[in-house]
Amino acid sequence: MSTDLAEFHRWFEERRAAHAYRVTRVPLTKLDGWSADPETGDLLHRSGRFFGVHGLDVRVPGRAVEEWRQPVISQPEHGVLGILVRDFDGVPHCLLQAKMEPGNVNALQLSPTVQATRSNYTRVHRGRAVPYLDLFTTLGRGRPLADALQSEQGAWFLAKRNRNIVVRTVRSDEEVPVLDDFRWLSMDEIGWLLAVDDLVNMDTRTVLSHLAGSAGPAAARFHGRPFHSLPELLNWLTHHRTAEPTVRRRIPLRETTGWRVTDDEVSHEEGRYFRIIGVDVRAGSREVAAWSQPLLAPRGQGVVAFLVRDIGGTPHVLVQARAEAGTRDTAEIGPTVQCVPANYAHLPGDRRPRHLDTVLAAASAPPPGRVLFDVVQSEEGGRFHHARNRYLAVRVGDDVPLDQGDAFRWATCGQLAALNQYGGLLNVEARTLLACMGFIP
Amino acid sequence: MSTDLAEFHRWFEERRAAHAYRVTRVPLTKLDGWSADPETGDLLHRSGRFFGVHGLDVRVPGRAVEEWRQPVISQPEHGVLGILVRDFDGVPHCLLQAKMEPGNVNALQLSPTVQATRSNYTRVHRGRAVPYLDLFTTLGRGRPLADALQSEQGAWFLAKRNRNIVVRTVRSDEEVPVLDDFRWLSMDEIGWLLAVDDLVNMDTRTVLSHLAGSAGPAAARFHGRPFHSLPELLNWLTHHRTAEPTVRRRIPLRETTGWRVTDDEVSHEEGRYFRIIGVDVRAGSREVAAWSQPLLAPRGQGVVAFLVRDIGGTPHVLVQARAEAGTRDTAEIGPTVQCVPANYAHLPGDRRPRHLDTVLAAASAPPPGRVLFDVVQSEEGGRFHHARNRYLAVRVGDDVPLDQGDAFRWATCGQLAALNQYGGLLNVEARTLLACMGFIP
Repeated sequence: MSTDLAEFHRWFEERRAAHAYRVTRVPLTKLDGWSADPETGDLLHRSGRFFGVHGLDVRVPGRAVEEWRQPVISQPEHGVLGILVRDFDGVPHCLLQAKMEPGNVNALQLSPTVQATRSNYTRVHRGRAVPYLDLFTTLGRGRPLADALQSEQGAWFLAKRNRNIVVRTVRSDEEVPVLDDFRWLSMDEIGWLLAVDDLVNMDTRTVLSHLAGSAGPAAARFHGRPFHSLPELLNWLTHHRTAEPTVRRRIPLRETTGWRVTDDEVSHEEGRYFRIIGVDVRAGSREVAAWSQPLLAPRGQGVVAFLVRDIGGTPHVLVQARAEAGTRDTAEIGPTVQCVPANYAHLPGDRRPRHLDTVLAAASAPPPGRVLFDVVQSEEGGRFHHARNRYLAVRVGDDVPLDQGDAFRWATCGQLAALNQYGGLLNVEARTLLACMGFIP
Repeated sequence: MSTDLAEFHRWFEERRAAHAYRVTRVPLTKLDGWSADPETGDLLHRSGRFFGVHGLDVRVPGRAVEEWRQPVISQPEHGVLGILVRDFDGVPHCLLQAKMEPGNVNALQLSPTVQATRSNYTRVHRGRAVPYLDLFTTLGRGRPLADALQSEQGAWFLAKRNRNIVVRTVRSDEEVPVLDDFRWLSMDEIGWLLAVDDLVNMDTRTVLSHLAGSAGPAAARFHGRPFHSLPELLNWLTHHRTAEPTVRRRIPLRETTGWRVTDDEVSHEEGRYFRIIGVDVRAGSREVAAWSQPLLAPRGQGVVAFLVRDIGGTPHVLVQARAEAGTRDTAEIGPTVQCVPANYAHLPGDRRPRHLDTVLAAASAPPPGRVLFDVVQSEEGGRFHHARNRYLAVRVGDDVPLDQGDAFRWATCGQLAALNQYGGLLNVEARTLLACMGFIP
């Protein structure tokens, strides 16, 4: 670890010490400001804002399980996830923030410069103003490098999107006050921090995915001649978006067959997938000092991975057209592997996710250089409680065939970065992998 | 006109003569297979498929009229609009079709190789199979040049999209049988035909917008150095997609205040905007020989235009972030001017659409070379009755300022073509203009 990183960790521990916070589990029926709709059982905030927990009836042809019902979080508002970039001595840096979220492992993680729901920044909370916000929401205030509406976890959210935005200061000597909890970090430093478990939060990673191919220290992995043309990849994705559409229907939470709704929590009858729990939060450092909210608590740790294979001397990753319960546009481009292995334990072996065993075997006894990264990352602690996935990229040889069937395609990271600019094409798990591919050395 | 075009017109008239068809106006309550839902008054087909006519309550901040109710067509199914491309003696040609639609001016227009709703091609009609369909819906059957889900008229459709797809035959000597009503046309020929009123139908134009920058005879207009970067344009669009969102709510058709629903038709109380009428159709040449359906009949002819201005020696068009009642993603990139002038007659002068008078003045007394094209095109005759817009591109000088406010941006046609690949970014009117820019010499 470089001196700079030691210094970073000292600062981060200092911020941790400076933050007084307490998260207490409470029954759903005791959440201040939240209540179950008398007709549907849906969990709603009295303001009608923030988010809600509803039921969903889903049919996804071709999945291991083709029909099911589940709780789902709906959050129709767009939030802003913004990273400010400025050069120091010709080296680009990102302004990141040590931020507490109630569902975070370790409470404090590294957030983007701005991470605000619309309710936050329009002050529905009647809380403090969001610092740096106008740099992102005022047209022409900075030089935009990326700006896209991006999806989040399709398995848990109903068509949720956030605005992902990267803005560079117009002049490199522009005076930007650095508030407590904020810190400029170089792309190299961010690369090292992305290799640390549960440190760089999901919102930062998805915004970084927009910089991975241009500014990431490992951007060389993005170059080279692609096996498929971009129109071929778009053809493949649009094919899956139109061929056998997912049919989903919002239903009352209390009609989610297979799930148990109690005063305390919502849980799956066989103890799989996730629970909806309630927490009271006291935090000195947030826009609002105390609040209550539901959180989605997954049951097991997930595995999210790219297989990486050279084709004609260019590294390619294997991507999958992925339809989730809540995916806004039927299917998005997802990782080679994306699953919670425990959720497949009760299913016949032939329903086990493709390539999962290849990834796990490679990671458990890796020849040198075979595992590009292997790191546990946390998902959004503002909505999820201790949601963690093991993110890996594993190199494979020519013995893995090029033809992986219609659900899969080989793409270069450069192609994924090009597609990623427009929003709604790569799912959030693939975007974390893309950020790791471009940043982790 | 070249010999080839004379030959084309002979063929087209021959096709017209070969088609027996009759379109008869009938009251909505007498439409075979259609009825008004007893609770809502919505017009629905007994199969539950095809499309429906509902009510919509809309709030679009910043529009000339900010709140209103209107009927709207909903068609959740994706159709396929596909053009097959093949080289003859090294010259690329498109396979187009002389096709009748009940709402068409002149009945017969030039359609894409495939123009099929999902109900068509999954045979809900129990009609004939759609020829050439498998070339577009089978992955790997041809070489895809473009494939995107694209929106259609946001003023009349609720979030409707069709798959726009261009496929090239894998080999240039591939045997493709040319059925009656079909004909190979070169890009040059298509350019000339696009300059003819009411000939190349909307579906063909939107698919052609994907070829305009690469294969169009006037593709030179797409080259040059852009005034704004692509991230700047995406930033501007995403800003408008998130700033002040359109709020729309489906309501029962009979609650569309300001509209009159009678047995005969649905019409606006002051005679503006459009009517919903019913027709009986008999056609020898369609998948189904006879059917009934509602059509949306606009009241006046629209004006859709680009202002074109050189910036640093490169031609740019002025585009607008455009939110319509039914736009799927709040705002899309639209033309400089897009309106039906008659709909503004009752409003104060300051609500008159920006740049409309500039366009009309330039077109009425044009100095040579100032009007790039000026042609009346028909919109989709399968849903609209005689819906026509005058499409223009008008060159302006440096006296038109670069700064046109936050709602407008200057973009090169090359940038629009790049954005257009991904679907859902350019509205259908801008795509017709883009096709004309790239094809009309």
